[in-house]
Amino acid sequence: MDLDKIKTPMLLLDHKKCEANIKFMTDKANQLGLEFRPHFKTHQSGIIGNWFKNYGVYKITVSSFKMAEYFAHHGWNDITVAFPVNIREIDLINNLSAKIDLNVVLENIESTNFLSKHLNNPVGFLIKIDTGYGRTGVSFDIFIIIDKILKEAEKSDKLEFKGFLSHSGNTYYAKNIDEIKKIHLDSLQKLSLLKKQYADRYSNFIISIGDTPSCSILENFEGIGEIRPGNFVFYDLMQYNLGSCTFDQIAVAMACPVVAKHADRDEIIIYGGAVHFSKEFVTIDGVKVYGLVVELTESGWNQMEENNYLVKISQEHGTIKASQGLFEKIKVGGLVGIIPVHSCLTANLMGKYMTTNEEVIDHISGK
Amino acid sequence: MDLDKIKTPMLLLDHKKCEANIKFMTDKANQLGLEFRPHFKTHQSGIIGNWFKNYGVYKITVSSFKMAEYFAHHGWNDITVAFPVNIREIDLINNLSAKIDLNVVLENIESTNFLSKHLNNPVGFLIKIDTGYGRTGVSFDIFIIIDKILKEAEKSDKLEFKGFLSHSGNTYYAKNIDEIKKIHLDSLQKLSLLKKQYADRYSNFIISIGDTPSCSILENFEGIGEIRPGNFVFYDLMQYNLGSCTFDQIAVAMACPVVAKHADRDEIIIYGGAVHFSKEFVTIDGVKVYGLVVELTESGWNQMEENNYLVKISQEHGTIKASQGLFEKIKVGGLVGIIPVHSCLTANLMGKYMTTNEEVIDHISGK
Repeated sequence: MDLDKIKTPMLLLDHKKCEANIKFMTDKANQLGLEFRPHFKTHQSGIIGNWFKNYGVYKITVSSFKMAEYFAHHGWNDITVAFPVNIREIDLINNLSAKIDLNVVLENIESTNFLSKHLNNPVGFLIKIDTGYGRTGVSFDIFIIIDKILKEAEKSDKLEFKGFLSHSGNTYYAKNIDEIKKIHLDSLQKLSLLKKQYADRYSNFIISIGDTPSCSILENFEGIGEIRPGNFVFYDLMQYNLGSCTFDQIAVAMACPVVAKHADRDEIIIYGGAVHFSKEFVTIDGVKVYGLVVELTESGWNQMEENNYLVKISQEHGTIKASQGLFEKIKVGGLVGIIPVHSCLTANLMGKYMTTNEEVIDHISGK
Repeated sequence: MDLDKIKTPMLLLDHKKCEANIKFMTDKANQLGLEFRPHFKTHQSGIIGNWFKNYGVYKITVSSFKMAEYFAHHGWNDITVAFPVNIREIDLINNLSAKIDLNVVLENIESTNFLSKHLNNPVGFLIKIDTGYGRTGVSFDIFIIIDKILKEAEKSDKLEFKGFLSHSGNTYYAKNIDEIKKIHLDSLQKLSLLKKQYADRYSNFIISIGDTPSCSILENFEGIGEIRPGNFVFYDLMQYNLGSCTFDQIAVAMACPVVAKHADRDEIIIYGGAVHFSKEFVTIDGVKVYGLVVELTESGWNQMEENNYLVKISQEHGTIKASQGLFEKIKVGGLVGIIPVHSCLTANLMGKYMTTNEEVIDHISGK
């Protein structure tokens, strides 16, 4: 790619790395005999979605009905909206379920009751189970609530029970691979208990889990029927820092113009701030880090010998704390590459991608 | 407004409060004899921009050339881009300066030298001065660099010196009004030193400052010629928490659907996360806070007796830690109002506004 053409912050996408990530996760799911229903909330792109089709993927996960509508428009017809159902969107739910196989996520009686009364077409449902993350879902062992939801759903001939869905988002806060493994195994054990509890009553239901760290690095998926990782399509600094991926698996980097340098404090100011990266940070050696500096090349980007980080961020400005080597190398008016902390949020803000072959790739929030 | 029509997270705008904020700041600038060049990076809206015209505002500030282009298209023809100039955008700079009075911000020789050589049309410039924030700019007392920039600019008949520009962004980290005052007075003193230094050499130049906290609550602007506050147009929880505004001055709130409740931990889960609010937080009583819960009404929103906060946020989910009263009041499928922490970032993510009279208002990142 011709770096001279980049005038403002641009989200670069390495198509080869991205396809390699898709192949890696598809192969892994196939080898382990797992259904693969990737989460498309990371890329939110019709074109990138199509790349998955080349690997035989035909079922997907999204996190909103708006996203489901977008991907239905792009030819996807088996979609799980992995978010506690927002019943205010009943009209869209009825529109979508007239066209595609739609699965929703339930975790309380109120929403189940509402859907029982207002659905026009068959809709699959999964019950959201909490195995320790503590964000959403019914605790894995509170069968009384699960039973109530199932009973409420049975009142409707439109609601079809598909299984249980869980997300160990707490692996994102793990300090290392051992901690990820511990959280994952604990979750498997809890879900297996749940599976046993309902095995007699239902002959065919699925246990679906989803976090990228577990799906990337672990091999034991006993009792699990389906995986829904999303972030693996790009990975990012958070995943790299956690040990979920190698540097070479990271498929996105920002290209940002350099607008100022301050020698007295070894700081480089870039055009690239909270409206480009988001304010997500990871803490490295006690410092809030908003991105990792990489060297941009004509074919993509390279890891540098020393780690230089984006350490401050405001609406449009970013501040890099630079080693002497980096400080001397980087010129005002030049470009610097930055691996973002959280690729999902960065992609959402940027609203498009440019591949390292200069193709422009769409994003639902299109800019 | 008919709250039943709101199906997904929506950024509500109280037009009356917003105009009152515009009038308040315009009146204050007029009374103090200050030029008023409001920063439009907060609202980024053509329609809201027009509301300023009713109060005699004709000069504005933006933070990117893209924004300058947008507002030039909306009839603004005197625009300062208050960001260290990104010389990679020289073509856009030359296009814009052919049509409008454009001012850029310089803080180093490299950019000045580049502009000297590549400008096609007259462009005003201000030198960015650091009075203690430590983000960008030349320190107020390093005359040797300021002199070099001025000398470099003199080589070009296109670059016209307009003055010095400073931004006390450190007032955002102040703990109370006294701290804001201290930072502001310190900044005034430093800028007055600078003014004296160049008073003999230039007969007519301006000192421009900008932060919303100082402009909102202080009265002493000795030596200052121009103010550029932006956030005051909406204010937000950060400003309210700082003491820059009253609750009734806050002109935006998010309306978010309630999707789940967890009685065991007094938590309410809303459809409204990092892709709606941003991950900006303020720390209140040791807790990270992403928003303040308000009661939505047909005409807007009301402050509640108790403070309930949005305390966790992921891509699309938000978690409210609820008092018993709030927990009982809020129903799954209902709506909850939230004052965002940082209105600039929330507006940028939402890409549009709906007024409490149900008018849809544009935003540059339009969705």
